[in-house]
Amino acid sequence: MSESFEDILKQVNEIPTKKLSVANAQDLPVMEAVAEAKAKKIADPILVGDEEKIREIAKQIAFDLSDVRVINEPDMQQAATTAVKLVHDGEADMYMKGALDSKTFLRSVLNKDVGLRTGKTLSHVCVFEIKGIKRLLFLTDVAFLPYPTLEDKEQIINYTVDVCNACGIENPKVAPLAAVEVVNPKMPVTVEAAQLTKWNEEGRIKNCIVDGPLSMDLAIDPEAAKHKAGAENRKIVGDADVLLFPDIHAGNLVYKTIVHLCEFKNGCILMGTKAPVILTSRSDSKETKINSIALAAVVAHHQHRI
Amino acid sequence: MSESFEDILKQVNEIPTKKLSVANAQDLPVMEAVAEAKAKKIADPILVGDEEKIREIAKQIAFDLSDVRVINEPDMQQAATTAVKLVHDGEADMYMKGALDSKTFLRSVLNKDVGLRTGKTLSHVCVFEIKGIKRLLFLTDVAFLPYPTLEDKEQIINYTVDVCNACGIENPKVAPLAAVEVVNPKMPVTVEAAQLTKWNEEGRIKNCIVDGPLSMDLAIDPEAAKHKAGAENRKIVGDADVLLFPDIHAGNLVYKTIVHLCEFKNGCILMGTKAPVILTSRSDSKETKINSIALAAVVAHHQHRI
Repeated sequence: MSESFEDILKQVNEIPTKKLSVANAQDLPVMEAVAEAKAKKIADPILVGDEEKIREIAKQIAFDLSDVRVINEPDMQQAATTAVKLVHDGEADMYMKGALDSKTFLRSVLNKDVGLRTGKTLSHVCVFEIKGIKRLLFLTDVAFLPYPTLEDKEQIINYTVDVCNACGIENPKVAPLAAVEVVNPKMPVTVEAAQLTKWNEEGRIKNCIVDGPLSMDLAIDPEAAKHKAGAENRKIVGDADVLLFPDIHAGNLVYKTIVHLCEFKNGCILMGTKAPVILTSRSDSKETKINSIALAAVVAHHQHRI
Repeated sequence: MSESFEDILKQVNEIPTKKLSVANAQDLPVMEAVAEAKAKKIADPILVGDEEKIREIAKQIAFDLSDVRVINEPDMQQAATTAVKLVHDGEADMYMKGALDSKTFLRSVLNKDVGLRTGKTLSHVCVFEIKGIKRLLFLTDVAFLPYPTLEDKEQIINYTVDVCNACGIENPKVAPLAAVEVVNPKMPVTVEAAQLTKWNEEGRIKNCIVDGPLSMDLAIDPEAAKHKAGAENRKIVGDADVLLFPDIHAGNLVYKTIVHLCEFKNGCILMGTKAPVILTSRSDSKETKINSIALAAVVAHHQHRI
């Protein structure tokens, strides 16, 4: 069971190295992360894009491409199509965004012929290791789905449980978060949270323990949970694994609060795709990019086994 | 200009000591905070409630009541009514919750005859001093108004600007927060944020600089603001004073994330009342209670002067 990114990186080294297809790879920060992921045997990259620029950057960062497959596609859209097709066809296990805008990248993910759609909604999970918290936290959805419906939230829980399982966490605790811990008919989020809890109790949402609506303190702070009235009746007492946000504003604001105010490590992937997709951005550190690749690798391995 | 609670406490010592009316004061943690506030000349308390229990607790915590006014009202509701009336009548400057539930306390605040209503909506501000951030942050609304309308948000901005002014911060920067920094018609929060910004530019919302929608990183992190595309066109570049949340879920979840994961100090008051109201709870530390009293004191002083 992984409790940290160090654990996840160890996990990755115990599985056959996964192949990583990078769309429009001629992006220095991305190539730096990919080079280090390769060196640490986290992934074997296939770099698709403007070959001349790719090789130039590789030289700049002392990235030896002698045993790296480079596919020349100078056109951005074509590079994305070619790169995603590799994953679609099983030649690569994971798909990563290079020097292209998110829209074009996502369009390639959703490409009907060579993309990675499953017919279900896409979603996003950000895995955090935060100083002061003993477990990994799986935050969703902080970056992709603006206003998940109740059905979306059920789907998101199922995806995130898979990601938890991939990290060796069985029967994760899922906290549908809100400002309050009781159902208030004037607060739809709390009603949805209670419904998700009910579906879990009835066996419709499986392989996890859902307990909501839950406030942040009951979700992540065992000390706070000790002192809170009614906490003894809850299934989650400061030990949530998955934090499910009411909407993307709450999710993104909490995510950025942690990133800018706490000591942490994180890695993120898209969910709901045929294979893991890494959609990191310029504001993500190299370490985050590498952690995301590692997370994608364990998820890819887990998806193949089930 | 206050940049920390230490500054606010110094400010308080430079103004005539304000009188603090406590409803149902026989609450040990509240009395501990009030005793320390009195010792530090932050406030002069008037304790309304069950006198026998009040004196018992005072003895327990070595709180000398010889120069403290104690009003005997053993009935909880009556204690609240009597306590709020003191503020209503100008015999006290601030109103604090003791050993009674929030509902009863708020009912006394809203009492038509002896309460503190202004006819406008009530709201809540939580002032934070966070390690790593050089300025005080004014978070609103994280605890009271669930789904502020656009008009409510305009009102909240006006209240919070007053509180900033009371802390010596002129022309504060107000960030209507969201997951994104551009208007997206599918995200009503961003449309509202842009409208608030427009109202500020047109002079309808005064004495502050409103810039939204804004993400959390642009709001509080100058480093992040340096690297973000388009940041050069923004009025807020990591130096927001006021963080205005989309709704109470986003606000409360961020607030609790800070409380449970960061090194911080904070103090909170209700806004939209004739005089400052302190609505702290058992989960608030003694220091937070004292900071709240200090905040209420500078706000009360400021309200009298304008």
